[in-house]
Amino acid sequence: MGDGVRLGVIGAGPMGRHHCRTLAGLPGVQLVTVADLNVETARLAAVGAPGAVATDDHVSLLADASTAAVIITTPNDTHAALIAEAARAGKHIFCEKPLSRDLASADEALAAVASSGVKLQLGFQRRFDPAYRRAKAMLSGGELGALELVMSTTRDPAPPAVDYMRHSGGLFTDTLIHDIDSVRYLTGQEIVAVSTAAAALFLPPEGREEGFVDTAVTTLRLDSGALAVVTNSLRATYGYEVGAEVLGERGKVSVGQEELTRLRRFDDSGVRSDHVVSVLDRFGEAFAEELASFVRCLREGTEPSPSGADGRAALAAALAAKRSHEEGRWVEVAELG
Amino acid sequence: MGDGVRLGVIGAGPMGRHHCRTLAGLPGVQLVTVADLNVETARLAAVGAPGAVATDDHVSLLADASTAAVIITTPNDTHAALIAEAARAGKHIFCEKPLSRDLASADEALAAVASSGVKLQLGFQRRFDPAYRRAKAMLSGGELGALELVMSTTRDPAPPAVDYMRHSGGLFTDTLIHDIDSVRYLTGQEIVAVSTAAAALFLPPEGREEGFVDTAVTTLRLDSGALAVVTNSLRATYGYEVGAEVLGERGKVSVGQEELTRLRRFDDSGVRSDHVVSVLDRFGEAFAEELASFVRCLREGTEPSPSGADGRAALAAALAAKRSHEEGRWVEVAELG
Amino acid sequence: MGDGVRLGVIGAGPMGRHHCRTLAGLPGVQLVTVADLNVETARLAAVGAPGAVATDDHVSLLADASTAAVIITTPNDTHAALIAEAARAGKHIFCEKPLSRDLASADEALAAVASSGVKLQLGFQRRFDPAYRRAKAMLSGGELGALELVMSTTRDPAPPAVDYMRHSGGLFTDTLIHDIDSVRYLTGQEIVAVSTAAAALFLPPEGREEGFVDTAVTTLRLDSGALAVVTNSLRATYGYEVGAEVLGERGKVSVGQEELTRLRRFDDSGVRSDHVVSVLDRFGEAFAEELASFVRCLREGTEPSPSGADGRAALAAALAAKRSHEEGRWVEVAELG
Amino acid sequence: MGDGVRLGVIGAGPMGRHHCRTLAGLPGVQLVTVADLNVETARLAAVGAPGAVATDDHVSLLADASTAAVIITTPNDTHAALIAEAARAGKHIFCEKPLSRDLASADEALAAVASSGVKLQLGFQRRFDPAYRRAKAMLSGGELGALELVMSTTRDPAPPAVDYMRHSGGLFTDTLIHDIDSVRYLTGQEIVAVSTAAAALFLPPEGREEGFVDTAVTTLRLDSGALAVVTNSLRATYGYEVGAEVLGERGKVSVGQEELTRLRRFDDSGVRSDHVVSVLDRFGEAFAEELASFVRCLREGTEPSPSGADGRAALAAALAAKRSHEEGRWVEVAELG
Repeated sequence: MGDGVRLGVIGAGPMGRHHCRTLAGLPGVQLVTVADLNVETARLAAVGAPGAVATDDHVSLLADASTAAVIITTPNDTHAALIAEAARAGKHIFCEKPLSRDLASADEALAAVASSGVKLQLGFQRRFDPAYRRAKAMLSGGELGALELVMSTTRDPAPPAVDYMRHSGGLFTDTLIHDIDSVRYLTGQEIVAVSTAAAALFLPPEGREEGFVDTAVTTLRLDSGALAVVTNSLRATYGYEVGAEVLGERGKVSVGQEELTRLRRFDDSGVRSDHVVSVLDRFGEAFAEELASFVRCLREGTEPSPSGADGRAALAAALAAKRSHEEGRWVEVAELG
Repeated sequence: MGDGVRLGVIGAGPMGRHHCRTLAGLPGVQLVTVADLNVETARLAAVGAPGAVATDDHVSLLADASTAAVIITTPNDTHAALIAEAARAGKHIFCEKPLSRDLASADEALAAVASSGVKLQLGFQRRFDPAYRRAKAMLSGGELGALELVMSTTRDPAPPAVDYMRHSGGLFTDTLIHDIDSVRYLTGQEIVAVSTAAAALFLPPEGREEGFVDTAVTTLRLDSGALAVVTNSLRATYGYEVGAEVLGERGKVSVGQEELTRLRRFDDSGVRSDHVVSVLDRFGEAFAEELASFVRCLREGTEPSPSGADGRAALAAALAAKRSHEEGRWVEVAELG
Repeated sequence: MGDGVRLGVIGAGPMGRHHCRTLAGLPGVQLVTVADLNVETARLAAVGAPGAVATDDHVSLLADASTAAVIITTPNDTHAALIAEAARAGKHIFCEKPLSRDLASADEALAAVASSGVKLQLGFQRRFDPAYRRAKAMLSGGELGALELVMSTTRDPAPPAVDYMRHSGGLFTDTLIHDIDSVRYLTGQEIVAVSTAAAALFLPPEGREEGFVDTAVTTLRLDSGALAVVTNSLRATYGYEVGAEVLGERGKVSVGQEELTRLRRFDDSGVRSDHVVSVLDRFGEAFAEELASFVRCLREGTEPSPSGADGRAALAAALAAKRSHEEGRWVEVAELG
Repeated sequence: MGDGVRLGVIGAGPMGRHHCRTLAGLPGVQLVTVADLNVETARLAAVGAPGAVATDDHVSLLADASTAAVIITTPNDTHAALIAEAARAGKHIFCEKPLSRDLASADEALAAVASSGVKLQLGFQRRFDPAYRRAKAMLSGGELGALELVMSTTRDPAPPAVDYMRHSGGLFTDTLIHDIDSVRYLTGQEIVAVSTAAAALFLPPEGREEGFVDTAVTTLRLDSGALAVVTNSLRATYGYEVGAEVLGERGKVSVGQEELTRLRRFDDSGVRSDHVVSVLDRFGEAFAEELASFVRCLREGTEPSPSGADGRAALAAALAAKRSHEEGRWVEVAELG
């Protein structure tokens, strides 16, 4: 196993730990270092990966010449700087979405990646879900003809802590950005303009005062003239919900159906089934596949996808949605620069 | 409306009342008489049909020269005699299933029908359900190739009173007979031999002592060599359930899916939908269509279906199932005569 | 039957003919006159209703003292004037949606109704669909807690002729208005402001030049601060599609699932089911029930619902959507007057 | 990794290769040897497991003192002898179902296991499927009350080669035995008597002449008096299908719903979804979990399940079904000895 691709993980929160578990079971890969500001957290994440070392010093991780690539799963507001730092250290990079929370730092990170020639993949894992992939294949193969109307939905089981939102940037850069990437992926089109209505209906007062929202409807104009709409909510008592629907001239394709297991119970209150509870329930396979794909690209020298440019395009549209909400008007994505 | 087909209904129980309501709304039909041993019951059934007269005397109904046809919805043990009587009176006949509870009286009834030349339709309403009809069309059109395996299910919400079963003949001639007709209808094949396992698991002691059963599994050999299996239960707390599935060399067709409305509720206990409660919920449309079809046959002089012969074939197989249960062995349908 | 409620139908297009058939089978009702500018069309609609007279003169219909009420199923641009005329003639009125295409004529019609004291029901039939009714009961009973986000969808199988749109007013007053009523009905809330993005993606050039659209996304702010979004399309090759979803603090309720029959086919291309093709497939039961409810209100002297005020509120929001599309900005419904 | 549980795999067919891949990703396990009569086949299976050695000599594998346990995935007719051999070598054993093809050799194998004190787990993987587990928990918790009627279905995409059947014993010991275990598992009851109707409808002539069947309906009497029925087919063009349904006094629980992905396509031919193609699609998670559970039992010194006794009980009932088919009568399982 010593001759596998040597990887480090930076950030040992829930997503980092999940990626560590995946990497531990991925043939041809060796997870060598897990870095987290809290070394105990790093140790917990490293438990299942024989041979992995825990550290609170990501700088030494980046300095290790034998490490080929890093997986960045830190808070959103650190992504851009870490990408730039890793790029300068010559490491290939898999980074969770979003690329950044602002375009200036995103552009700096992308410039560092470009000048160092390392590979960069963004963590839009829906692109690796079998249903999304088949839908994409169907649509790009022209089976539904010209596309007219897209709907995308993401609902989280419960809002995160306000402090988390201070780092993540809130609904627009943390949640909506997934749907924006889905729309771009499924249609192959760019987003031209955005109009968003958002509200803080159930966040704690602290979150509302800082301008965070929990519920949003975002309308998108695509470059073909087609329309898309995204609904987001940070609370769904029944669990995590993701869905997409694309209507074209010859029909519709939908990705949805959120049962967790194949069980149904029938009794005098009707029929009951269960529901996906967490993003890991829904996208466990996709999270594994995105890492496997990243590793394949490193081995074969091919370009990973979704790319840094995909990350930037999604960020720009997410920020346009935020501005639209704040200013109550349509915002052209090009305004953001 | 005076020039519509003039009909009488004999038997004003739940099914009789339902047919009265249907006839009252069916253009080109005039319901003229409703007969029931209990004239009050007959009156209740006649309420919604303007101009209909209630009576406790079905003999006078049959003697009325202006009445063209009768709908027989009396207890099962009176079907054969009433069919014979109506046939001798020259009335066309729509009779609820089963044709009879024994083959001797069934044959007498069919002989009377044959010699008088009246039309006879049996009340196997599933043949008029859109899903069963499309399945039949698909199968008889050969889309699935040779048929291999059929499953049919009927479950009633709750067992009837023991006294009702004394008249109906119980599960075999009252419930299983529907599935047998479904198998014959969907496959276009005859049933050669039958093996039944049945049990009385929840009937009251009185019912068990008289030999009635509430749960049964019936295996059928069809004349092509294909197999079918029917499961029946007289208790399903979630409501009325009917389903069929036919497996052939090129695939499967199923009829099922028992939601009552298009509503789903999602909450922290999962996802809930409702379920069809009664046979009227499931087959309301089919009950209306079977009467409309009967009336069309009378008007156009064509032969109604399902026919008396269909009723006899289903009865013979149902009685074979009863004998198989009693004797613990395979019974050839031909044994029954 | 002579003592039933005597009704006339004005407008014998597809919806008028459907209502005629329903009325012919509705106990306690007598359809006496069917009026249409084309008397042959009126005759076709009257065929199934024994005793009904066809005419091309709706004025004489309104002058007939024995007629208690009229069903107006003419083109949208004649609704308001006919309502006013029928009200002045003292007839109770069931009118298809929309109430009108502009608020001025709508207000005149409502004034005539108010001063004559007749009853007026608008044809928002979804309110009589069992699934919508149960959803409404669940929501108004507070089962889901505070409401946060509503989604409503209507897609027509194919766009109507441009000439039809000239009379109907197009997508906003003919299609979207159904969803607006659904949102108001399900939430019990008023719509405060509207933002619409619309496009003409597949209408013939003639239709586009006149400003009609075929695809629209409409975001609504409700008076509680909750958000709603409607997607509309005039083309869905798989058939007619209607759905709604309401997310609240304790869960979600959805109305959807568009299978026409309970049939599924499994073969080497996967699993296939069918889809509702027309609005009559989906809402046949609701169309019958709205008329039955109207007749019950006439008999019992109660107020029918949805009311004229419901019709006006939906119209105002639909016109706000149109203005939002034209001006590219959020429009307060109150702006419309 | 050297301190994990050291395991060998005997038999490198499709199931053996799948287990090798699973073991390679299972923390705390070291796959040390893969044995197959064809050493090339063994090598292919060992590819993904770093450090694993391929051999054509299972005797040396069993002689290796450092190997704690073996996974037996050879043809059915070798299971019993290999279990006995491995037990005598002191290895813990995970063996694919069935335990054997006859009760005599099964009993010898179980005796060897008992006298050597090794652990034995049978490969009825459905017991590790989340839906089956929840159904089991619901039923054994008494949520549905007394059980009345069970249905179980297994359909394979296509019949195996006749030569495969010669080793597997055919439908009864290779396919039906899964359903028998499901019935025992879900109900917690023993099977008392069996009646089977089976047919060879599409097997090649060679297979029919040797008495193999491809289609079967098996009725089971359980020790509580409840009934169960199993349908099996060796051909389903739409893919692999497994389902179960248990009806009790307070309702029903079902395990089914065979979509492969969450994708639906809507077009003018209706609605299409995909279907599970292979047993790995349906039970991939369960196959991994049964091995993980086996390893946990080895580590913790607990008894694995399903046990050798479960394997024997299922085999006895499967052989009773075979005899019932051959003799055309009900067979008591106790007859088999």
